[in-house]
Amino acid sequence: MRAHTEYLMFHTKKRRELVHLTPELESILESAHIDEGFMLVSAMHITAAVFVNDDETGLHNDIWKWLDHLAPEGPNYEHHRTGEDNGHAHLKSILMHHEVTIPVTKGRLDLGPWQRVFYAEFDGQRDKRLIVKVLGF
Amino acid sequence: MRAHTEYLMFHTKKRRELVHLTPELESILESAHIDEGFMLVSAMHITAAVFVNDDETGLHNDIWKWLDHLAPEGPNYEHHRTGEDNGHAHLKSILMHHEVTIPVTKGRLDLGPWQRVFYAEFDGQRDKRLIVKVLGF
Amino acid sequence: MRAHTEYLMFHTKKRRELVHLTPELESILESAHIDEGFMLVSAMHITAAVFVNDDETGLHNDIWKWLDHLAPEGPNYEHHRTGEDNGHAHLKSILMHHEVTIPVTKGRLDLGPWQRVFYAEFDGQRDKRLIVKVLGF
Repeated sequence: MRAHTEYLMFHTKKRRELVHLTPELESILESAHIDEGFMLVSAMHITAAVFVNDDETGLHNDIWKWLDHLAPEGPNYEHHRTGEDNGHAHLKSILMHHEVTIPVTKGRLDLGPWQRVFYAEFDGQRDKRLIVKVLGF
Repeated sequence: MRAHTEYLMFHTKKRRELVHLTPELESILESAHIDEGFMLVSAMHITAAVFVNDDETGLHNDIWKWLDHLAPEGPNYEHHRTGEDNGHAHLKSILMHHEVTIPVTKGRLDLGPWQRVFYAEFDGQRDKRLIVKVLGF
Repeated sequence: MRAHTEYLMFHTKKRRELVHLTPELESILESAHIDEGFMLVSAMHITAAVFVNDDETGLHNDIWKWLDHLAPEGPNYEHHRTGEDNGHAHLKSILMHHEVTIPVTKGRLDLGPWQRVFYAEFDGQRDKRLIVKVLGF
């Protein structure tokens, strides 16, 4: 049994950004020398998310619009009394979830034909981290 | 340490459907010969979900109604410029999440008294796959 | 390879409550004697959630308000025909998700600087259980 852990750093240029992670995750798995197991991909910050869906720009625009509808930016958050202005970003993180677990089979990420893994930044322009941990054999 | 992997195929008759998975997952666990570990149940498509809740028809109707309220079907998705008409199904998949991890203890799915596992199809009538992977010993 | 399983019991005084779990999870990890692996923290009931976010009271109030907006309490749930009155609590559980997987590295919960783990009760004042399972070596 083996474990392999890497940390990815993000410092997005914009406050909101999607980062496509799949190619980097595939390369991490290669370094891990694990054929069967699980890969956990988990944001280490509470204003970001990790999710699996399609790599299609139109859909990504739909996702941002939808997130802004369900968890709008604005002044009416009690959290802002602490001096923060990112209440909406915490709710978006909860809505999207901050982690995914990817099955690893025969040394490959066992994803479906259209499944791609994304990091979603809701409050960037500063250092953020994400952990990738593979457990298996 | 062992890993056991199976793929379930779905081709639902209706575009939307809930499939109760618990009995099949219990039978997969029996084949796995794993007493302690985790079972990952993960949709391999991006217009479906896997979730844990009650096996109660009224509640299932409530869930569909709620999903249609939060991620409505309709023409106003940029994703549809690709020729697709299933933008809402992608959002529903993100909202419900596409995977669950079930603890395995003493050779049983360690679920609470009312917890049942479901596959939710949002854009069916075609071949879809789901992966069940058990890791443990 | 080892597995370590514990069950936490909750009987909240109020129907809704947030319980901060991180210190107890750290102490469970110490008992587990596992240095590398995953800790699954999963509610065993279908009207509760487990999530990771900030330990900040203002934000917690924002989360409750937001949950009530997206999955309101009220009489209009088909589920209530069974005699229940907690339809909203099931939807909140689905929205927040009932489980998280926490990476374990060098014998510590590998969380980011602001990440804290919470149990969210949506229909308490009765016995509820949560499972904590660590798998690794």
